[in-house]
Amino acid sequence: MKNLLKSKSLPKPTENPWETLESKPIYENPWIHVQEHQVINPSGGRGIYGTVFFKNKALGIVPVDEQGYTWLVGQYRYALEEYCWEIPMGGGKILENNVSIEEQLLQAAQRELLEETGLIAEKWTKIARIHTSNSVTNEEGFVFLAEGLTQTDSSPEETEKLEVIKVHLSDAVKMVLKDEITDAISMVGILKAAKILNMV
Amino acid sequence: MKNLLKSKSLPKPTENPWETLESKPIYENPWIHVQEHQVINPSGGRGIYGTVFFKNKALGIVPVDEQGYTWLVGQYRYALEEYCWEIPMGGGKILENNVSIEEQLLQAAQRELLEETGLIAEKWTKIARIHTSNSVTNEEGFVFLAEGLTQTDSSPEETEKLEVIKVHLSDAVKMVLKDEITDAISMVGILKAAKILNMV
Repeated sequence: MKNLLKSKSLPKPTENPWETLESKPIYENPWIHVQEHQVINPSGGRGIYGTVFFKNKALGIVPVDEQGYTWLVGQYRYALEEYCWEIPMGGGKILENNVSIEEQLLQAAQRELLEETGLIAEKWTKIARIHTSNSVTNEEGFVFLAEGLTQTDSSPEETEKLEVIKVHLSDAVKMVLKDEITDAISMVGILKAAKILNMV
Repeated sequence: MKNLLKSKSLPKPTENPWETLESKPIYENPWIHVQEHQVINPSGGRGIYGTVFFKNKALGIVPVDEQGYTWLVGQYRYALEEYCWEIPMGGGKILENNVSIEEQLLQAAQRELLEETGLIAEKWTKIARIHTSNSVTNEEGFVFLAEGLTQTDSSPEETEKLEVIKVHLSDAVKMVLKDEITDAISMVGILKAAKILNMV
């Protein structure tokens, strides 16, 4: 075990120690595709690995107004069979066009915030990159802090039945600490936003 | 939109607004099973939903010694095709026996910490419940804070090729803020542990 007390730099990452012998497509829909791989693991043992690839990036937005209030969205999550309070969130597809990935993520985040809360923000800051569940999926999420807010009318998607509430960011932090908010991207987004805005 | 300034209590969650017409098993291995559902969404529209059910609970541990140091584990993540620095983590299977779920989670966390770092802890505190990726999966994770540490020899699993480093918890927080740690459970665990221990 290395002690990083002195060097303060991380050991150099190793190359991919897994060998993939064969990959078989299992299932695909507009959002995910599932594969099963025959592998040799880092210790030389033979086995299988099932992976879930996400076609979209997960985008979370922490809108914060001048008084320090933020917006939370409540919805029943089908896969979880549980009602969840989250930051405004959605999926962003990265297209192969002339628009940079950064710009596509930002535009998707702006669209999601507007759709779910009716908010338009002047100032956008990307505050986190997150791998949600890296033992099985390749899902990658990003969180934006959105400031300079203007309220318009909202228009949630057909599949979404959303409840929207406005709470102080410091109260959202308390909800995270009490596990009243359990969505990983929301937890990270709220804790990071509060730290960045010196509200902790 | 409700403003919770005054009431400070959340609106009552709705019942499940999704209707499932049919569920079809797609794929199963020792860790996950995938299903496709024919559904009617909350707005009455017909569609499909693919879900990934996890057979294990995700367990993360933030060990912190008397000087405020913690341990991080580096490994190449097969599903992500990326090298990741994380808190000690693993999967815990919940068995139907006479041992309570809480106790099974704790025992699995103790086993994982020992296997990955060689540490034994006297004091265990569950500090977070996390849903990692609730748009598609039902994965549920828990984070424990482990204190009162004793170092023994470690014995990582066959499939794991782990690098273990020791850093101050305040430096781990900085790594989270800089997105050098991107695993969701690790990010939540480190930020929450630092808050609980007043190290932020």
